[in-house]
Amino acid sequence: MGTLVLLRHGESVWNAEGLFTGWVDVDLSEKGEQEARRGGELLLGADLRPDIVHTSLLKRAIRTANIALETADLHWLPVTRSWRLNERHYGALQGKDKAQTRAEFGEEQFMVWRRSYDTPPPPLPDDDKYSQAGDRRYADLPPELLPRTECLADVVDRLLPYWYDSIVPDLAAGRTVLVAAHGNSLRALVKHLDGIDDETIAGLNIPTGIPLVYDLNDDFTPRKTGGEYLDPEAAKDAIEAVKNQGKK
Amino acid sequence: MGTLVLLRHGESVWNAEGLFTGWVDVDLSEKGEQEARRGGELLLGADLRPDIVHTSLLKRAIRTANIALETADLHWLPVTRSWRLNERHYGALQGKDKAQTRAEFGEEQFMVWRRSYDTPPPPLPDDDKYSQAGDRRYADLPPELLPRTECLADVVDRLLPYWYDSIVPDLAAGRTVLVAAHGNSLRALVKHLDGIDDETIAGLNIPTGIPLVYDLNDDFTPRKTGGEYLDPEAAKDAIEAVKNQGKK
Repeated sequence: MGTLVLLRHGESVWNAEGLFTGWVDVDLSEKGEQEARRGGELLLGADLRPDIVHTSLLKRAIRTANIALETADLHWLPVTRSWRLNERHYGALQGKDKAQTRAEFGEEQFMVWRRSYDTPPPPLPDDDKYSQAGDRRYADLPPELLPRTECLADVVDRLLPYWYDSIVPDLAAGRTVLVAAHGNSLRALVKHLDGIDDETIAGLNIPTGIPLVYDLNDDFTPRKTGGEYLDPEAAKDAIEAVKNQGKK
Repeated sequence: MGTLVLLRHGESVWNAEGLFTGWVDVDLSEKGEQEARRGGELLLGADLRPDIVHTSLLKRAIRTANIALETADLHWLPVTRSWRLNERHYGALQGKDKAQTRAEFGEEQFMVWRRSYDTPPPPLPDDDKYSQAGDRRYADLPPELLPRTECLADVVDRLLPYWYDSIVPDLAAGRTVLVAAHGNSLRALVKHLDGIDDETIAGLNIPTGIPLVYDLNDDFTPRKTGGEYLDPEAAKDAIEAVKNQGKK
């Protein structure tokens, strides 16, 4: 069976500013662009050439894929995009400062919103300036599918149909599949792949810009639980850095 | 019926150096990147937002589409790529200097190779350094489909199946379709659309980086022959410049 390569987008402008982003379509920072190039270099260095690419509908993931592919001279790969690979919708927290939210609502509530498996933040009103209710890219979604907020359980639910219907067939054809997406959509996928329980997933952080490679069995389970990062040392350091987000 | 928007890639590094490029995967020059940005600005200025994008498998067209879409904040559009939109394969001329070829073989032979409808240049041997015989992106093409040289008639033949099977269905759905491609693949398409005869097409030049818009009738013929450039004055100037390529 095929090989799955997960790539979390590099730092965005709002990551750098410590704001909750979710479905707001924020661009990569310069550091994020560098991380994407590094991702492409790691693919090249490992001689790991994807056959096909899947991205979310958000530019920070799309540009991460584009930059990594340009670095690896693979501009021409077929690419498919889906809202099902989008970041978790952060509801009413979208656009809010992380450290300020932590100070205002306390550590406990903050961590529930960030890490609880099944408690979403309050929904974002459609007339909020950070709402995606009028966004043309979601115009084909029936209103009941367009999220106003999500917990990680919601992300798993909306991600899995895309995994089964769009990614698995590429893997079944023996292809190497690159998925360029987000912290929480990739956590949702890894939870499914590695059979991680609802509690343990809270502690899992996926570093940005470092391809995570899963060789798969015939039933699309990982040959090695947790897969392998192309730069394991950098991955370890980056995982620590993500954990400290929102702390002063 | 839908709207068709044709975008010829901006200057490539080899355009700037006056070399025949064809299927050699040469990158955009800095000027070419600027042209692509201008293409995106023209789309924005005309409030013309494509719903879907088709590109060739060559990075100068792919990057032109990416840069134009980034300029128009349309990163997320679905995109399909095909070798059938590639530039004309220039056979044994690939990698050769245009002015030198003109001097060596004479104006008449030079113009036959550049502009004759049905006389291709000599084929490029598979072991030539500018051959695409071993290129992974064409690995799925049976050998009889992979060109070693092409005249414009050959380009029309291999382009039309893609027009009918992949572009027309998008137009039939009422969509605005952006095709980012090359001088000769776009000439082939325009020849078909406007019903241009084999002789007259020799004199038609499509400028780079200026979107050419065709509103279509129910039978996918243009409402207005020749379509409309989003910047007609610049198009006129650019057409003159293309005509003078290879002249000292």
